Amino acid sequence: MSASSPNDSQSNQTVIENVEQNSSTTEKTVSTGPSKSELKKKAKEADKARKAAERAAREEEERKKREGKEAEDHAKQNYGKLPLHQSQERTGQKRLKFAQLGKDMVGQRVVFRARLHNMRPQGAKIVFLTFRQQTHTLQGVLVISKENDEYQVSKQMLKYAQLIPSEAIVLVEGVIKEAEVKSCTVQNYEVGIQKIFTAVEVGDLPFSVDDASRPESEFQRMETEDIQFARVALPTRLDNRVLDLRTPCNQAIFRVQSGVCQLFREYLNSEGFVEIHSPKLQGAATESGASVFKVQYFNSTAFLAQSPQLAKQMAIAGDFERVYEIGPVFRAEDSNTHRHLTEFMGLDLEMVIEEHYDEAIDVLDNMLLSIFHGLQQNYKHEIESVKKQHPHDDFKFLEKTLRLPFKEGIKMLQEVGATDSEGNPVGELDDMSTENEKLLGRLVREKYDTDYFILDKFPLAIRPFYTMPDPLDPTVSNSYDFFMRGEEILSGAQRIHDPAFLIERMKAVGIDPVSMSGYLDAFKLGAPPHAGGGIGLERVVMLFLKLGNIRRASLFPRDPKRLMP
Amino acid sequence: MSASSPNDSQSNQTVIENVEQNSSTTEKTVSTGPSKSELKKKAKEADKARKAAERAAREEEERKKREGKEAEDHAKQNYGKLPLHQSQERTGQKRLKFAQLGKDMVGQRVVFRARLHNMRPQGAKIVFLTFRQQTHTLQGVLVISKENDEYQVSKQMLKYAQLIPSEAIVLVEGVIKEAEVKSCTVQNYEVGIQKIFTAVEVGDLPFSVDDASRPESEFQRMETEDIQFARVALPTRLDNRVLDLRTPCNQAIFRVQSGVCQLFREYLNSEGFVEIHSPKLQGAATESGASVFKVQYFNSTAFLAQSPQLAKQMAIAGDFERVYEIGPVFRAEDSNTHRHLTEFMGLDLEMVIEEHYDEAIDVLDNMLLSIFHGLQQNYKHEIESVKKQHPHDDFKFLEKTLRLPFKEGIKMLQEVGATDSEGNPVGELDDMSTENEKLLGRLVREKYDTDYFILDKFPLAIRPFYTMPDPLDPTVSNSYDFFMRGEEILSGAQRIHDPAFLIERMKAVGIDPVSMSGYLDAFKLGAPPHAGGGIGLERVVMLFLKLGNIRRASLFPRDPKRLMP
Repeated sequence: MSASSPNDSQSNQTVIENVEQNSSTTEKTVSTGPSKSELKKKAKEADKARKAAERAAREEEERKKREGKEAEDHAKQNYGKLPLHQSQERTGQKRLKFAQLGKDMVGQRVVFRARLHNMRPQGAKIVFLTFRQQTHTLQGVLVISKENDEYQVSKQMLKYAQLIPSEAIVLVEGVIKEAEVKSCTVQNYEVGIQKIFTAVEVGDLPFSVDDASRPESEFQRMETEDIQFARVALPTRLDNRVLDLRTPCNQAIFRVQSGVCQLFREYLNSEGFVEIHSPKLQGAATESGASVFKVQYFNSTAFLAQSPQLAKQMAIAGDFERVYEIGPVFRAEDSNTHRHLTEFMGLDLEMVIEEHYDEAIDVLDNMLLSIFHGLQQNYKHEIESVKKQHPHDDFKFLEKTLRLPFKEGIKMLQEVGATDSEGNPVGELDDMSTENEKLLGRLVREKYDTDYFILDKFPLAIRPFYTMPDPLDPTVSNSYDFFMRGEEILSGAQRIHDPAFLIERMKAVGIDPVSMSGYLDAFKLGAPPHAGGGIGLERVVMLFLKLGNIRRASLFPRDPKRLMP
Repeated sequence: MSASSPNDSQSNQTVIENVEQNSSTTEKTVSTGPSKSELKKKAKEADKARKAAERAAREEEERKKREGKEAEDHAKQNYGKLPLHQSQERTGQKRLKFAQLGKDMVGQRVVFRARLHNMRPQGAKIVFLTFRQQTHTLQGVLVISKENDEYQVSKQMLKYAQLIPSEAIVLVEGVIKEAEVKSCTVQNYEVGIQKIFTAVEVGDLPFSVDDASRPESEFQRMETEDIQFARVALPTRLDNRVLDLRTPCNQAIFRVQSGVCQLFREYLNSEGFVEIHSPKLQGAATESGASVFKVQYFNSTAFLAQSPQLAKQMAIAGDFERVYEIGPVFRAEDSNTHRHLTEFMGLDLEMVIEEHYDEAIDVLDNMLLSIFHGLQQNYKHEIESVKKQHPHDDFKFLEKTLRLPFKEGIKMLQEVGATDSEGNPVGELDDMSTENEKLLGRLVREKYDTDYFILDKFPLAIRPFYTMPDPLDPTVSNSYDFFMRGEEILSGAQRIHDPAFLIERMKAVGIDPVSMSGYLDAFKLGAPPHAGGGIGLERVVMLFLKLGNIRRASLFPRDPKRLMP
């Protein structure tokens, strides 16, 4: 009874003495009876039973000791699971945001809520925990305390902390100390943990945020070093998007996305634009019936808007002069590529022009430049966070944007022998394939040192019927595309505002004007000359940050095969 | 040949002389032949023929003179129809915006483009034209000039101007003069017109913008005065929304709408929120299958999001901490009321709470106060424009918002004997009818002098399953509605973040947790305690400006019977 540990030598001796006593007693009682082998057998059985009893007694003793120790645990009020948060009270307690940590806080006691990012025990008495708040990580140290420490950290508390799973949300109290921590974003401080409670538990995770945050270069280390990492594939990430979104890279991507919208609006507001919201439910298919989603609308059918084109033109006919809209755009195209979504965010604008559609190009160009400048100035931290996982060259653009006539773009392609999909040399009035757009992007980068340029004066035949033809050359039109890293991000034009001419153009391209009567009605009421354009938000984000796949730039992407989560 | 005008006396005399000569000749030649009556008859016939010939000659002469005069029209380069605007040239000519007119411009020559709003001839030589740019109107005066005036305004030019239909878009050149004009918004200046060209013609209009701009009070004048106005009914307006949008009232309403979004974002950005965009195409109906629109999605079915509820909660589980979204919300409810739309704009937010859901109420409340203050400070001109057509009392709110527990609201209703739809006294745990909400709004207005208040602690049974119950009283919940002029504009709550408790609540209200597995998955990955709310943009605008019908606050409203334009 004096000790219970299996390593305790006194206890072992006691057991051995007992065995000897028992065996001598047996010999005395049955001195004339059983054979030597029988005796040996009985002795063995007795020995077994005795050992089992001893083991039970030892376990009972250990249990009691454990309970006794817990009762003695001075630290038990410093850890554990919190009750369900039902807004029980509001004390106004200040809670630390890691982003606000500074030298003045050294020595201060702080309280914060964070995810447990990961954990690393060091020996039996110390555990290092990494806490995460969005893109910021802070090291915490939990050390078993000495008896006279003000805050008690017991063996049990250490054990409790070690069993908290990654991604659980914890409420921590501790003291900020100076430290040098390379593995966290907060590199000059750590927190000495005094209390740690679990606020939210988590179940089994499909992958760790650490694995999901790893750049491609780390996997290359696996080829030469003796390490093993789990690579998290994009579909797995998207299936578990909530977890995936917690990586520093994703936290940054969607702050950049939010920044693009913010900068878009700021620039246009300063230019006298009005924000509008147009209906996504349409009574008629706006452009072509082929790629439009049908909606069951009570006893009839509605269509999801493929763009706010008609609505923003109607707002112009309604005298709003300059309008923009940020809203979802729906395309029922079965395109399974790196740059197509069935639902994406359109940044659209439309404006009255006084003399020339170049006025609209100026606004669009200055707006994009304002976005690029704004991102590079105000989102440095986010861009760096993305680069850690997706390394890329900074987006390059000129102070005065290159405006290349379509024909000159074709000439540049012809000079390097570019061909169309059928192997013929590219022509001045042909559409440009995605491959040739990318090639042109590379040629422009080499010649002009920019990732951003404008292609102007597209052939009339490859643009929608409502595009205004050039006043001198009837084969080209007052239309333009804007490119980032060789991919189109904006398409726009001067629109035909004259209803008679619209009808003429409809007939020329084989559209029955009767089928577009709703469209024509707006122009019969008198629309001023106007031009505009539409930007794909996710494309701008994908190309600015060189993410390689548009799904990475969409919070919950939708494609022909994905409607969840 | 000396003159052609019927008022010219010399010409009349010549005709008379000719008649006398002819008749004397006839008498001489047939002196012994025809009778006196025959002679008289012949003389009459000859006279007729001669007069006809003379008339033809005179008309020919007049035609030639007319052509000659047109050739002589010194003003012909000063008016006419412009060719189709195809961006022919860009001169950089400065064009006047009426809003910028000031004393320094008196005597200056200006060019502007505007709608022709209306016209009033004064005598034969003067026409007053009202030009309109959005909410601003400017008087123009067109006067036939004397021969030595620098700018020539001819009779023909005046006639041309008089035939330009209202709502045509004109390009005008003229000189700014001081004047007193009561009928226009620019009351101290007018423009002396030197050139006027039609840039965009219009067809027949279903109503005039003047008629569509008339307040109800003007129609009351018809009862006592001898005047007649056309009243433009709401359905007619909505059928021809493009024209209707040109009224000063509508121009103002949608600037206020744009302002609400702007102020919403500004406040939340300053509070560390991130803007998100969640998909409207959903793989499963999010709340209840009854009021959801179905979409044909390739070979399967999708649903239009009834709210971004799940998406914003997933963003919270994805560690974005504080998010907001402005996006369309779809409700397949066959509700044909003044306050329901099938598609409206939701201003949604969701945020992590540290200790108490009151933190979310604080943010929501301060955000709305910031909107109210911002509108009353920065949109005075717009609010006044709306008042001219829809007179109303300014929206009243307290500096410290009234937060009324639901039970106290019920007590106030009980005190005035309010009953439910079945005639029973209202109860503490019953839902509140729309009628009783309005009544409570009036009672609160009387007692507290505010059009805006918060109702807190709704009965648990009448809120969605994901609403967090109160920690002490299981019959009520941590949920709230915000009211403007007695109508609900915001609904929100602390949400249940614990998956086991969510399942428990689903079962309690009869929802099969399996049918909501997508919803539950997000919480199994660990979501922090959070709360939020959703605002209907059009309701805020309708109630702030007291428009009486939500369709007036929607650019192109959608209801069960309207999908166009």
